[in-house]
Amino acid sequence: MAGSIKDQVAIIGVGCTKFGDNFDQSFEDLLVEAGFAAFADARIEPERVEAAWLGTFSPYAGNGKASVSLADALRMYGKPITRVENYCATGTDAFRNAAMAVASGMYDVALVAGAEKLKDRPMRGLGWEGGHPYQHDGVTAPGVFALSANRYFHRFGGGRESLAKVSVKNHHNGSMNPKAHFQMEVSEEQVLKSPIVAWPFGLFDCCPTTDGAAAAVICRADMARQFRDDYVLVKGLGLAVTSGRPWYDSANEYVGFAATRAASEQAYRMAGIGNPVAEIDLAEVHDCFTWTEISNYEDLGFCRKGEGTHFIGEGRSALSGDLPVNPSGGLKSFGHPIGASGVRMIYEVVTQLRGQAGARQVRDAELGLVHNLGGPGSVACVIVLGRP
Amino acid sequence: MAGSIKDQVAIIGVGCTKFGDNFDQSFEDLLVEAGFAAFADARIEPERVEAAWLGTFSPYAGNGKASVSLADALRMYGKPITRVENYCATGTDAFRNAAMAVASGMYDVALVAGAEKLKDRPMRGLGWEGGHPYQHDGVTAPGVFALSANRYFHRFGGGRESLAKVSVKNHHNGSMNPKAHFQMEVSEEQVLKSPIVAWPFGLFDCCPTTDGAAAAVICRADMARQFRDDYVLVKGLGLAVTSGRPWYDSANEYVGFAATRAASEQAYRMAGIGNPVAEIDLAEVHDCFTWTEISNYEDLGFCRKGEGTHFIGEGRSALSGDLPVNPSGGLKSFGHPIGASGVRMIYEVVTQLRGQAGARQVRDAELGLVHNLGGPGSVACVIVLGRP
Repeated sequence: MAGSIKDQVAIIGVGCTKFGDNFDQSFEDLLVEAGFAAFADARIEPERVEAAWLGTFSPYAGNGKASVSLADALRMYGKPITRVENYCATGTDAFRNAAMAVASGMYDVALVAGAEKLKDRPMRGLGWEGGHPYQHDGVTAPGVFALSANRYFHRFGGGRESLAKVSVKNHHNGSMNPKAHFQMEVSEEQVLKSPIVAWPFGLFDCCPTTDGAAAAVICRADMARQFRDDYVLVKGLGLAVTSGRPWYDSANEYVGFAATRAASEQAYRMAGIGNPVAEIDLAEVHDCFTWTEISNYEDLGFCRKGEGTHFIGEGRSALSGDLPVNPSGGLKSFGHPIGASGVRMIYEVVTQLRGQAGARQVRDAELGLVHNLGGPGSVACVIVLGRP
Repeated sequence: MAGSIKDQVAIIGVGCTKFGDNFDQSFEDLLVEAGFAAFADARIEPERVEAAWLGTFSPYAGNGKASVSLADALRMYGKPITRVENYCATGTDAFRNAAMAVASGMYDVALVAGAEKLKDRPMRGLGWEGGHPYQHDGVTAPGVFALSANRYFHRFGGGRESLAKVSVKNHHNGSMNPKAHFQMEVSEEQVLKSPIVAWPFGLFDCCPTTDGAAAAVICRADMARQFRDDYVLVKGLGLAVTSGRPWYDSANEYVGFAATRAASEQAYRMAGIGNPVAEIDLAEVHDCFTWTEISNYEDLGFCRKGEGTHFIGEGRSALSGDLPVNPSGGLKSFGHPIGASGVRMIYEVVTQLRGQAGARQVRDAELGLVHNLGGPGSVACVIVLGRP
């Protein structure tokens, strides 16, 4: 029976690069920018960091490496640095491992960084890297998620109009975010008229191919006030892995993600959350495709299965709604450099909980959720963060 | 200042496949064999395992995947599985992360697995994968380590005869190990006459290209006796990363590995070891090349820098010596499926500490050391294990 490290670990600093087509930055340049931004935000001397975790899916792109790139970027030599990779949940799982290490008593202060250069490599966003299991089975990421979206609409109704509302909302939020890849509004008409990538997904239903990095400095909760009063506490952690061949699983109903349900159950149990939609004030969730966000509402327990199209349609996940989702702009608008995304979501939730999100600030934000979904819907990581 | 989790985590079961040219086993087949062997050894129902860590460097070879392959192999669905990658220290770092997670109180029982299919991929053992930093700089693994070996002999004397003694010792030990890739003795003459790969390394100075997997079940130390009386405790953990470009570092004297020195200092501090050569009863160290083992003697503090050739020459690291090194046969004879190696070393040390190593048993083994060295000598992980 899993235990709990609730309230034992604090986030005292966060940093994030501008996300986008960062052709002028190497993998290590991205780590320098995000890492030192997090150190400055934590008001900490880099030497005080005792260990680090790097979340990266494809480190060799952009002439980068794995753990040694973080050492070279931050001149952090002779210390422990672990690379974690867990598909699109890479960044959140790196954070989870770092948090458990601090909670164990091994380290007082640790760094988590996530980084990816996707623009310098053959992967072109809508396919996947050579040798990736999707390609083994002749299926691309949009194709896999589109199969589920079609099945979902067949069973519960709804269609491309609901998807478009997610895109419009996330682009609206991203238009207020100076670090987002895309800072532009889109209309429902634009989304619906965009070229089809894999039915029912058009171009504006898919997250872009993006470079970026983000970082967070964490420490033992009882030390946090040494650094800043508005630190953020780790309330819940969950990670769940299901089959890597979901399309061969006859129990898979193709209308959502068991990994997200299992990971959120773990995180809610640790955080003591009984009614997520009432207790959580904002959520950064994995909108790799617009339909994924609709499924996430349901799998995370914000509404019942099949009601996600109403959740978006009624504006409940808008900035002005009762549970704003992806106030940052989401993967759709902020971009999705794989290993960076989870840490970038933590950056956004911390910024919101501190009340520093400017035009996209969620009112009275006290408890926030971060969610990544990876592989063919097989890996999910959920983190709940809260004010002390 | 780093803390300690000494004596908080126990190893209650270990498993290991035969290492070799396992063309008839997929990546997942290897995980099935090692994982269920570890469950049986721990006398535990697989359902009791709450979380897992998978150490693998190149999971996509052998038609494998990353975390989802472990889920599918062991039918371990809905639970946390993290993939760790840290060059050749991948297996040991996976173990380190699992141990900290158990020590944190998040999980009572966890699995660590390491696996690699190297025979099914273009990498041919003496080179490295496409896109690897060694190839960026036009340097292969034997080439990098050979540069250091030559510099070392230039400064301290010695030569291929000392290297051959390491190969002869490790092949001798491996000849008594039914799971080793090579179970054959070699003579000094054979080693010295083998074709040169990168001077001073001949073919018998280089570890082979191997498939294999190993696994360990760990739990909270205070629960260990529920499973077996002869459990093994985690005494020390250390991980250190240095520059990924050591050949551009003017402070690098090219006669050893700062990462190993830093990682062993961390592990010895946690374990309370002041005099390693007197206190440690056996060591499994990273002999990717014969010279690496000689340098490891020094970097791990078994003797002073420059005295490693005497350490092997005087038979101190032989099975009958005062600190037997690589009783398993080492990477040289057992093989080196990258992510599996560190966990396989843990398997050997646990087997030795339990007194179950048969013909290669080290007498009165109470404290054992595991050491991996990865990247261009840039990443080292050291684990100290002991009887309760």
